[in-house]
Amino acid sequence: MCQACGVTAVGPLLLTAASPATRAALLAHGMVVPLTRGGVVLEQDAPADRLLILLQGSVGLHTTEDGGAATMVEIVAAGDALSIAAVLLQLPHPVSAVALAPGHLLSIPADDFRAAAAADAALMHAAMEQMARQWRLMVEQVVDLKTRDATQRAARFLLRRLPAQRGAVDLPEPRGAIAARLGMTPESLSRALHGLEDAGLLRLHGRRVDVPDRAALYRVSLPRAGASQGARRV
Amino acid sequence: MCQACGVTAVGPLLLTAASPATRAALLAHGMVVPLTRGGVVLEQDAPADRLLILLQGSVGLHTTEDGGAATMVEIVAAGDALSIAAVLLQLPHPVSAVALAPGHLLSIPADDFRAAAAADAALMHAAMEQMARQWRLMVEQVVDLKTRDATQRAARFLLRRLPAQRGAVDLPEPRGAIAARLGMTPESLSRALHGLEDAGLLRLHGRRVDVPDRAALYRVSLPRAGASQGARRV
Repeated sequence: MCQACGVTAVGPLLLTAASPATRAALLAHGMVVPLTRGGVVLEQDAPADRLLILLQGSVGLHTTEDGGAATMVEIVAAGDALSIAAVLLQLPHPVSAVALAPGHLLSIPADDFRAAAAADAALMHAAMEQMARQWRLMVEQVVDLKTRDATQRAARFLLRRLPAQRGAVDLPEPRGAIAARLGMTPESLSRALHGLEDAGLLRLHGRRVDVPDRAALYRVSLPRAGASQGARRV
Repeated sequence: MCQACGVTAVGPLLLTAASPATRAALLAHGMVVPLTRGGVVLEQDAPADRLLILLQGSVGLHTTEDGGAATMVEIVAAGDALSIAAVLLQLPHPVSAVALAPGHLLSIPADDFRAAAAADAALMHAAMEQMARQWRLMVEQVVDLKTRDATQRAARFLLRRLPAQRGAVDLPEPRGAIAARLGMTPESLSRALHGLEDAGLLRLHGRRVDVPDRAALYRVSLPRAGASQGARRV
């Protein structure tokens, strides 16, 4: 779509659900925005005047409560739409978002997206699927926080990025951001990763982690019986 | 609405958003279902063939992962629609639901609700607002789990049920369910509540808790600086 910036992986699931005419109209009004690590993507409580779809990269969602420190809520992966509920409902952004790695966003005016979704049932359906999926991801995180210790959570985080039976997982985000996503200190994350490496379950290479055997790492990621009663060791 | 069962508080926000004609049609096809504590309301992975709106009572959402133990994800309050995304998207229920207290549900055939939402933009808008709200609740829970210790989480849970400056909070659920919702053991919850009572911040009376000063309890609920880095004491 964009010869200038070199983005090739333009396949946001959301827009592929729209009719070709709807998609073309949205893309005609959209722009591709480059992201540099640390760049602010959107601010909590600001009006949701653009729909932002992450084409490439990694974005962290944070929420700040009553003037307290910001808490990392989620790391959004390429393909996801940021703040889609706020765009559809004309609400302020419930969270802020910061780029955790270089990448690109597709930015579409919120008015255009709302009009397109109202006119194109398949696009509206896809938008609601994204909302439902984002809820399920938060549910999974709640379950992880309640039932898994630091090592199990780190293992599960890696597994989610590894579709194959073995291979390399990219971790382009700062380690502190990953630790905050997992609800642990950077020191706990480092201990967990090195423990998994010592057990032969992965090999650390800076921003890349090699996983030789997905099934073995999966077994380590499982909570122990009774862990849902709240025993959590960080 | 229902002379037989005596339910008087029929004001689900979702249906009040619909036009009077839509609302009347949905209520004509709906039925009020009584809930007894421990009764299964819906089963994970079953088809979402009814929209269930909790009129009165308390329902716990659980998720079971890969044959493991069920984890309490959320406690749903009166007024909320269960599994609304699954109903709209014709997906299986992502979670199971169990009544934690006596109450009543309004049950509406999913086909009727989908047709009504497709025809009534205000109803669809309200349904999406519920989805967005449910996501925000999960975000809040993630933040609590990452930044608050057991006492702070217990205080926050009580505060959410206390709109006034002082007064009584009903806890009709089994204490074990509340503890699981808060990601702690029943023993930790008991310690937290008795600690708050010893500090003069509440008085325990079985299923009711009196809060003499909301502002004082609120101060205790705040996370300490730096807690977002993952220090969690249970």
